[in-house]
Amino acid sequence: MTGLDPGVAARLKRNEAGLVPAVVQQHDTGEVLMLGWMDDEALHRTLTTGRATYWSRSRGEYWVKGETSGHVQHVKEVRLDCDGDTLLVKVDQTDVACHTGDRTCFDADLLLAT
Amino acid sequence: MTGLDPGVAARLKRNEAGLVPAVVQQHDTGEVLMLGWMDDEALHRTLTTGRATYWSRSRGEYWVKGETSGHVQHVKEVRLDCDGDTLLVKVDQTDVACHTGDRTCFDADLLLAT
Repeated sequence: MTGLDPGVAARLKRNEAGLVPAVVQQHDTGEVLMLGWMDDEALHRTLTTGRATYWSRSRGEYWVKGETSGHVQHVKEVRLDCDGDTLLVKVDQTDVACHTGDRTCFDADLLLAT
Repeated sequence: MTGLDPGVAARLKRNEAGLVPAVVQQHDTGEVLMLGWMDDEALHRTLTTGRATYWSRSRGEYWVKGETSGHVQHVKEVRLDCDGDTLLVKVDQTDVACHTGDRTCFDADLLLAT
């Protein structure tokens, strides 16, 4: 049981692990910062605390982004997609999003540019 | 076997179904249009044909976006994230991205705005 709004919970389509991918975007510049994963409780906390909160698949625990690094994400907007299986979280990212020190998790590895 | 560059294939971390989520973004406005899923072959086709190509989990087949609707995505840039488990595909979206007729798959369901 989580406190997630039942109407939202009913629209969520989770994967076999009970998770939904969350695309995280800087609200003003439009940069795609990272992709995280949320279960119902992480989404509930994100919606109610104003701090982006994920389920860490590697550590098996909730993870308030920036709790240790200080690189907090202040939540500005949350949207669910047409299939109910992906979230879009618009945030104000403090400093950098990536644990490597890059601004976004997509900065380092360019596969194609036209 | 696919024709995907072995160096790229070695960096990809696929889920248990052999897929990687692909965040799809309009290259100039920064709009997040949708999330699709790619296996090695879909990524190879996306990188080499210039048309965003996904694996349809519901239909169990490759899906060249816009093949039937005409709402083609011309690929501008492809990036892999720091963990190798998420792609960012910047495209030029013809008309609308969502099958509902909305511009993006995130237009209709706003969960939180601050």
